[in-house]
Amino acid sequence: MNLILLETSDMSGPEVATLTGERARHAIAVLKAAPGQALRIGMIDGTIGTGMVTAMTDRSVSLRCVFESVVPERPRVDVLLALPRPKVLRRLWAQLAALGVGQIILSNAERVERNYFDSHVVTEAGYRPLLIEGLQQARDTRLPTVTVHKQFRVLVEDDLATLFPAGRRVVAHPGGGRSDGGLGTIDSTERVLLAVGPEGGWNAFELKLLAAHGFHLYEMGGRTLRTDTACIALVALVHAALQDREDPL
Amino acid sequence: MNLILLETSDMSGPEVATLTGERARHAIAVLKAAPGQALRIGMIDGTIGTGMVTAMTDRSVSLRCVFESVVPERPRVDVLLALPRPKVLRRLWAQLAALGVGQIILSNAERVERNYFDSHVVTEAGYRPLLIEGLQQARDTRLPTVTVHKQFRVLVEDDLATLFPAGRRVVAHPGGGRSDGGLGTIDSTERVLLAVGPEGGWNAFELKLLAAHGFHLYEMGGRTLRTDTACIALVALVHAALQDREDPL
Repeated sequence: MNLILLETSDMSGPEVATLTGERARHAIAVLKAAPGQALRIGMIDGTIGTGMVTAMTDRSVSLRCVFESVVPERPRVDVLLALPRPKVLRRLWAQLAALGVGQIILSNAERVERNYFDSHVVTEAGYRPLLIEGLQQARDTRLPTVTVHKQFRVLVEDDLATLFPAGRRVVAHPGGGRSDGGLGTIDSTERVLLAVGPEGGWNAFELKLLAAHGFHLYEMGGRTLRTDTACIALVALVHAALQDREDPL
Repeated sequence: MNLILLETSDMSGPEVATLTGERARHAIAVLKAAPGQALRIGMIDGTIGTGMVTAMTDRSVSLRCVFESVVPERPRVDVLLALPRPKVLRRLWAQLAALGVGQIILSNAERVERNYFDSHVVTEAGYRPLLIEGLQQARDTRLPTVTVHKQFRVLVEDDLATLFPAGRRVVAHPGGGRSDGGLGTIDSTERVLLAVGPEGGWNAFELKLLAAHGFHLYEMGGRTLRTDTACIALVALVHAALQDREDPL
């Protein structure tokens, strides 16, 4: 936890916060919080700052907070992910938030099993704490927005125009090769939407529908990876492509 | 399991193999193996081929094997990893093998806890099955070599000359910036050795020693990531850098 994220419900005044539960335990046991000590804090979706410890019990830590004026930029990478197995998705939430994604669009696909949608880890109560864990690791405050779509075709044909109105659309597909307009020609101000398929890959219909809606093919290499490995690798590659455009080596 | 890897002990002749244990269970339950069916196989550190099912029991599958003549190229990325927590290392083995690494050099560092070296997951019996799992996922046969080093300084000053005699040495360090000679100027035939630090980062002495032994600094971005996330992202970036040199976009 490199930053402690605060919810508005933690605040009892514009500058006064009380940590309880896991964050208090972490502040006391790991950060060795003591009165007068300064902790790095941030408001969810807000600014970063410093919290001075003013009082402690064995299960709570009171802070006097000073916030900077700048809100971290929303990461410029969005992910459209065919819903993975719950076990894999559980591992992914914190890692995606730590790598930095603006939104996570979870979708059905032919090779997604329908009962995956019933998992607790697809509910806000299931994923929100994991996203916050990732943000606290990476010192970010911007909580990715999450939407869940049970109809792939409705998502691509209707909803994407609102969810991702402008920017580069890229679909990862092993063996698909790379089409012009993939990551190589990205410019540094664009948002990128990266679509990652299910364990067995997108089917032909899905690939055709994505192509018809502006998705460029991108292939990472010849190796078949687990969804979570592929997803982390791809998000890192998109971030690197955006960063190289800003700051060429 | 996209490829079933065979050990020499599975072979009862140059073309006859018998699967038992987890691989037999997988072939029967997941691949729905039946006499006459062809399964993708490979010899550990050897060639890839096809195994025709000739006989089955409820816990074994006999194969008649035909191998291709080409052994997959050894991945050109090596990793020098400050020994992570056992829980993190357990997650990493299969993912590193799937992404493709030639060797994994595990090292002590100031911020590595000594008792990590006592974990089962640092023993060959602990990691070999996990590496094989990753290779079977990625359809590779080349088992990464693994060495474990309890003295960082001896490793860098003495052992690296043998373990990694020629190629590009790169050390990942958040906040370290990027030095000339990092990934930007790699050529497509070079091997790359990527050094990834412990959870709290390399200390100043370690960074200086690495720099004195030819390691170029590479920074991935401003975010602090968990070791496993960082490691996967970095290996993917090195592979992409090598691939872009071979096949520019």
